[in-house]
Amino acid sequence: MPKPIIMDCDPGHDDAIAIFLAAGSPEVDIQAITTVSGNALIGHTTRNALIIAEKAGLDHVPVAEGAGEPLVRTAVTAPHIHGESGLEGPDLPEPEKTVDTRHAVDMTAEMLFQADEPITLVPTGPLTNIAWLLKRYPAVKKNIAGIVLMGGGSYGNWSPAAEFNIYADPEAARIVFESGLPITMAGLDLTHQALAGQEEKEFLREAGTNAAAFTAELLDYFAGTYHSLFGFSAAPIHDACAVAFSIDENVFTTEHLPVTVETHGTYTTGMTVIDALQTTGKAPNVHVARELNQDMFWTMLKNALQRLP
Amino acid sequence: MPKPIIMDCDPGHDDAIAIFLAAGSPEVDIQAITTVSGNALIGHTTRNALIIAEKAGLDHVPVAEGAGEPLVRTAVTAPHIHGESGLEGPDLPEPEKTVDTRHAVDMTAEMLFQADEPITLVPTGPLTNIAWLLKRYPAVKKNIAGIVLMGGGSYGNWSPAAEFNIYADPEAARIVFESGLPITMAGLDLTHQALAGQEEKEFLREAGTNAAAFTAELLDYFAGTYHSLFGFSAAPIHDACAVAFSIDENVFTTEHLPVTVETHGTYTTGMTVIDALQTTGKAPNVHVARELNQDMFWTMLKNALQRLP
Amino acid sequence: MPKPIIMDCDPGHDDAIAIFLAAGSPEVDIQAITTVSGNALIGHTTRNALIIAEKAGLDHVPVAEGAGEPLVRTAVTAPHIHGESGLEGPDLPEPEKTVDTRHAVDMTAEMLFQADEPITLVPTGPLTNIAWLLKRYPAVKKNIAGIVLMGGGSYGNWSPAAEFNIYADPEAARIVFESGLPITMAGLDLTHQALAGQEEKEFLREAGTNAAAFTAELLDYFAGTYHSLFGFSAAPIHDACAVAFSIDENVFTTEHLPVTVETHGTYTTGMTVIDALQTTGKAPNVHVARELNQDMFWTMLKNALQRLP
Amino acid sequence: MPKPIIMDCDPGHDDAIAIFLAAGSPEVDIQAITTVSGNALIGHTTRNALIIAEKAGLDHVPVAEGAGEPLVRTAVTAPHIHGESGLEGPDLPEPEKTVDTRHAVDMTAEMLFQADEPITLVPTGPLTNIAWLLKRYPAVKKNIAGIVLMGGGSYGNWSPAAEFNIYADPEAARIVFESGLPITMAGLDLTHQALAGQEEKEFLREAGTNAAAFTAELLDYFAGTYHSLFGFSAAPIHDACAVAFSIDENVFTTEHLPVTVETHGTYTTGMTVIDALQTTGKAPNVHVARELNQDMFWTMLKNALQRLP
Repeated sequence: MPKPIIMDCDPGHDDAIAIFLAAGSPEVDIQAITTVSGNALIGHTTRNALIIAEKAGLDHVPVAEGAGEPLVRTAVTAPHIHGESGLEGPDLPEPEKTVDTRHAVDMTAEMLFQADEPITLVPTGPLTNIAWLLKRYPAVKKNIAGIVLMGGGSYGNWSPAAEFNIYADPEAARIVFESGLPITMAGLDLTHQALAGQEEKEFLREAGTNAAAFTAELLDYFAGTYHSLFGFSAAPIHDACAVAFSIDENVFTTEHLPVTVETHGTYTTGMTVIDALQTTGKAPNVHVARELNQDMFWTMLKNALQRLP
Repeated sequence: MPKPIIMDCDPGHDDAIAIFLAAGSPEVDIQAITTVSGNALIGHTTRNALIIAEKAGLDHVPVAEGAGEPLVRTAVTAPHIHGESGLEGPDLPEPEKTVDTRHAVDMTAEMLFQADEPITLVPTGPLTNIAWLLKRYPAVKKNIAGIVLMGGGSYGNWSPAAEFNIYADPEAARIVFESGLPITMAGLDLTHQALAGQEEKEFLREAGTNAAAFTAELLDYFAGTYHSLFGFSAAPIHDACAVAFSIDENVFTTEHLPVTVETHGTYTTGMTVIDALQTTGKAPNVHVARELNQDMFWTMLKNALQRLP
Repeated sequence: MPKPIIMDCDPGHDDAIAIFLAAGSPEVDIQAITTVSGNALIGHTTRNALIIAEKAGLDHVPVAEGAGEPLVRTAVTAPHIHGESGLEGPDLPEPEKTVDTRHAVDMTAEMLFQADEPITLVPTGPLTNIAWLLKRYPAVKKNIAGIVLMGGGSYGNWSPAAEFNIYADPEAARIVFESGLPITMAGLDLTHQALAGQEEKEFLREAGTNAAAFTAELLDYFAGTYHSLFGFSAAPIHDACAVAFSIDENVFTTEHLPVTVETHGTYTTGMTVIDALQTTGKAPNVHVARELNQDMFWTMLKNALQRLP
Repeated sequence: MPKPIIMDCDPGHDDAIAIFLAAGSPEVDIQAITTVSGNALIGHTTRNALIIAEKAGLDHVPVAEGAGEPLVRTAVTAPHIHGESGLEGPDLPEPEKTVDTRHAVDMTAEMLFQADEPITLVPTGPLTNIAWLLKRYPAVKKNIAGIVLMGGGSYGNWSPAAEFNIYADPEAARIVFESGLPITMAGLDLTHQALAGQEEKEFLREAGTNAAAFTAELLDYFAGTYHSLFGFSAAPIHDACAVAFSIDENVFTTEHLPVTVETHGTYTTGMTVIDALQTTGKAPNVHVARELNQDMFWTMLKNALQRLP
């Protein structure tokens, strides 16, 4: 029995690859894809999600649009990383797939309440929809198996202390982190181990499918912005790490630690404050990702791409 | 010509060892020792500084008492690490050496204004005195060669995000970090590489002097608290790292980066916010310590202990 | 043509009187009553709203339940003012009226989108539902004629700087105040002029209806808590002031000023920061209530009670 | 026996008038005048203090220069109110009087320690020197009879919530307000009752002295900036109110209340948070000025001017 997951994302180059990974992995069953404002504005991320779902052959998976703005802040986007559209680089066809009429939060709640077994949420964008879901439908918690998210880390990429997804909606992140649900956090410490350089790109391209070719095009653009902005020689496939863990928990090690989210700092808003030395005496609430099994990760991804159209 | 330094400290086990290291190193010339509230209340740290200066044979070096409280906060101390007295463990004799009648800040300013060449400040406690000096005597800056401090890091030991020295007086730290002076920061990332375990303790004891024996006693107590509190199997000799760098800059590598101090966070006050990925576009203002040359460090310390009474 | 209004409330003694005032005033037409967590937990405020709507003869007015928690904080209630149930004092019958199945925010949006003319929102509790509405259905703004709210002021009753409604959900208040919609704020400066003492109570009781008698019972309890907590000799009928203005704008004077909401202060979170001396140069966004026409207010209320069952 | 006072000020038009008031009132004995950065930079305020002391015939009163910057912030000045020099308007002669060689904080401490009876401090600028004094010389407290300050209030003139003196150094204000010393706060609620319009100016000019003529010239300029900036038709003589209270406590009524200073708000930093409704349960620590006896105030001032050169 594949594990049911709902992907909440803001594609986004690495979100796109994350969707491919899930779509091509028989261990998980994508129940739905929901979108959020993040890497690009909500109109773009929804359109991109439809395009990618189509390319991944996810004909029966509903795509629903979610929050166009953070819970209590105004939208922040990352055009210098992902381009204005959120998915710059490859040619993007007009999607035939259409968006579900329900709001992402309402659709997710409906699915969770109707599910036979708890569903794992895999958010790879700002946590607005997830926080909203927990506030709007508090009874839904018992139907959530856990949350495996991409975000945070012991340092930032948007500010010195904050990673983009958490920075973009820190109050949402705080609500999720304090929810009591089982949370696994694939932060920058982990995702910066998933670097797609020339070698990895060739390895993936060998999968030989359209999805593999499209992935290579995404990586070309993405590696370019990471190189010019951060001096990286390879692009970190952040979001695919969270999906990989939902497929097989052996793909990275974790440490169970107390983590809070700073929402009030002058220089630190959006930081995931990880209590690695246990100075607070608080109970651990987050499984913090530590060490990536790189062979396993790239093999999972290549195998998935091979199974796609 | 030895390099003139003024040590500003809150002994503290590792401060004591730092004083021994400086006192036994012909490359530096201790002009003065000043004290601050930190590991223990100011009365204790002043008394401890007198005791250690005496043991180190620093008969002609003035010891002056400084700030008993942070600039704008109330005092925080660390009795669970250093004991109530700040120097628990070995028997402490009543010091014969007496404290200078001047306030630490006034004495430091006087010495700086009268010095033939700029002096390096080596603070290993909260930065209250140094910030106060810069506010009270702004013209003194040109007489300061640089500041080599122990404090901060990319994670904390007092809270998840804050190291004790910075946490204890974050506003003072901010003033120092924004002063425009050349600053080298030996933070926890570095000092947790200077771990005195059984082997290092024996190595140091071989120096054969009273100072070496006293150092071993200090390490016994200090390793005990680090073990029970943090599960460390060896004690980090934080403060000696800053002194070591003032003796020989080859003892650790550094990276020149923008660093600010958070003073307003809910969970992050006292954090040194290091812009490692250069996301802020700010000019670098701090030489952040990275990699310790351990052989060099322990050899420097042993040699210094050998030269002491 | 009566002016259409939607009342969003957390009854609460003065909310109840506010509903009576609206229900008995032919100048306004209550389209709906929605509830929010505030004076009491959401279960209580919804039940109380049903009871009061029933007593006011509002058989065809839907009552829908809204947010059980602030947008990003946990619920704060005021049992020492309103009792645990939110409406302590009079005997409360089990309501026959039942709650609408829609969520308050969804129902409000539906009504606004379907309305022939813009509707005035009259929130007299924390602004959670209104902020949520604006975030969830941004297109709804053009159908809102304006917002006349009870909350804020130049001083507080929950903390020195914050009035309860704003304190309970400051982020929601900030969203509403920054929405660009026409806002009238009946804060404590105004509502503390609407003091129901013995004389006013007798005046109202003369209306002779069941609603008038019930109002007198509410005032008995409410005056008691205001006396014991704040030393007031009479109870301020806060929420009725906002309704009164929606009925007739002559009931109090206003000043158009820039107002922001503090969400980050140590002592000031939840404060409505009123720029009375125009020090900020910002454009005015709130009509701040200043002087109550007391005769008019009490007469409006008595007349309304007279028209009720 | 006149009451000994030390004036700590940042002249400033109203500081100048405050000095005249004290100098011409036999009930108080000015022991010293100290200066602080505030209305203008420290160089200006010191020079202005010397000029005014000279005009007031205070030949034997030492004038010492204090803090050129707030405790932990950078200097804020008010050139749009007082002009660049801090005392724009009248011709200012080069002072013959020279500044004391001691730092204001050290001189004040010395005087307090040597005094036969406790001295009242009357600060009418930012509270930097006073806070510094309490931090640097904690033992000095017992020699301070009390602090009568101009600053704060229930609203602001620099920002909507903050009066200039408190805004300029909020951390200093917090230290002073939390010191446990008897504090009387003449804030804007009070000082905006001390409005010098045409009538008051003529009344004062009748005193007939050079000081009276100079005062009239100060008021001309000051009324001009208050009119153009705030639309006031008369200029509030803020600082003289604090001095007036040190001369005769009947000049205004006070209420003993808990007051804190906000140092962390987004819109409220520098606010004196007055707990008028006693919502915090804290003990009162400040005598908050309420109602000015205007006749008494203007008569005191005129009489004082009459006694000056």
